Amino acid sequence: MSVEIVGELINTSRKPVKEAVDARDAAAIQKIAQDEVHAGATYIDINCGTYVKEEEEIMEWLVNVVQDVVKDIPLCLDSPNEKALRIGLNLHQNSGKPMINSITAEEERFNKVLPLVLEFKTKVVALLMDDSGMPDTAEKRITIVEKLLPELLKAGVPATNIYLDPLVKPISVGDKGGQEVLQTVQYIKEKYPDVHTICGLSNISFGLPNRRVLNQAFTILTMGRGMDGYILDPTDKQMMGFIYAAQALLGLDPSLRGFLKAYRNGIYS
Amino acid sequence: MSVEIVGELINTSRKPVKEAVDARDAAAIQKIAQDEVHAGATYIDINCGTYVKEEEEIMEWLVNVVQDVVKDIPLCLDSPNEKALRIGLNLHQNSGKPMINSITAEEERFNKVLPLVLEFKTKVVALLMDDSGMPDTAEKRITIVEKLLPELLKAGVPATNIYLDPLVKPISVGDKGGQEVLQTVQYIKEKYPDVHTICGLSNISFGLPNRRVLNQAFTILTMGRGMDGYILDPTDKQMMGFIYAAQALLGLDPSLRGFLKAYRNGIYS
Repeated sequence: MSVEIVGELINTSRKPVKEAVDARDAAAIQKIAQDEVHAGATYIDINCGTYVKEEEEIMEWLVNVVQDVVKDIPLCLDSPNEKALRIGLNLHQNSGKPMINSITAEEERFNKVLPLVLEFKTKVVALLMDDSGMPDTAEKRITIVEKLLPELLKAGVPATNIYLDPLVKPISVGDKGGQEVLQTVQYIKEKYPDVHTICGLSNISFGLPNRRVLNQAFTILTMGRGMDGYILDPTDKQMMGFIYAAQALLGLDPSLRGFLKAYRNGIYS
Repeated sequence: MSVEIVGELINTSRKPVKEAVDARDAAAIQKIAQDEVHAGATYIDINCGTYVKEEEEIMEWLVNVVQDVVKDIPLCLDSPNEKALRIGLNLHQNSGKPMINSITAEEERFNKVLPLVLEFKTKVVALLMDDSGMPDTAEKRITIVEKLLPELLKAGVPATNIYLDPLVKPISVGDKGGQEVLQTVQYIKEKYPDVHTICGLSNISFGLPNRRVLNQAFTILTMGRGMDGYILDPTDKQMMGFIYAAQALLGLDPSLRGFLKAYRNGIYS
């Protein structure tokens, strides 16, 4: 896989995960993590932000529980809370660099999260938002790229460790929302070819019928502009099948080995 | 629909069409044409090239039979034979410009087909191939663009009537085949924004499993680079559903009217 697949399922905003956490049911969490790995995740996201007061304690529990069974795939620690992030990073021992999800250009968050990125030499998702809020045009996103990215690079974060997230908004709210993201990805790819781009997908189709089709088509369109990271449900075989197909069609899959292997493994059945 | 959908079903290489033609079963042909129109075709392709000796007679029959029931959608006359094309063009009376499929940069074919394009003021599919054969790189395709397109424009064909077809080849034969087409489309779109691009899709997946997924993903990828014409089966609801979704995501569907109308009409059911 030439794209990073951050498995999003271990998120306490999802009911089965909340129930497993409340019951401290390690096996249930481990099953989800292992399913994500088998489905092709290259990172396992851990998000327990819904537990505002207990977030740090639950982050510790989740990281330990997941690492008991998943040794090879690194974790993506998903929180705006630098204390919860530090707890997870201190415990991280899987092979591969841990990922922090996320830093932003908001001054306070930037200053709290950056030291962790540097200390633990992590990969980092950098959301294209600043203290003025979420951008609503491609131009505003690009302005934030040109502010946030040089600061990360200057601080010593290697370009290849940075995953810029253009922040996907529903096209039901603004019918240029998809195009804004595509333009932003293309800008980043052309100007900073070593920097990665990543996004969560499902916002794009919020409020519309046939969300599956929109999410699949948007994944393919963003891959066509060079996006190389997705935060998604890797057990969604249809979606993963489209990602393998798009890789093959984009010339990113030498001898179509990935596509044919996915086929033999039954992903299209 | 911001893309041209050339319905490909009336082609005598397809068994049900051959049988209907052999039996001169006008109703069967008319049913196919009407199904294509109802499914959203903006052109009805007519190809009877398998009848080498009787092609002209059968072209005449097919054009008359289709025009008896389809009045609003123009025809795409699909033949390298200028006599068959002339017969079809002389009979063409549907609203909208007829389309010729196709001219090429092959000297003999160019010289035989160009006069028809000019005389009947048609749209024209121009295949990116010349007397040296089918191109196997993006560079060779672009070389042919730069030879064929200026000749068409100089002869007086309006840019907006030209549909360049980059010639899709199977990625099973060369794993850069998809990328070559995408690069060619992007080149054309950036340098000649008024010129259209078109392709037949199914070659891309020849010899591979899961052709549907590859064809759908390639349609979306080419739309992402600006391709705005497809020669396909418009009664394939899944494919048409992805085209409506991609239009919406590319900002080509104001207020998502096309996407939502397609949904209400049951295309995603």
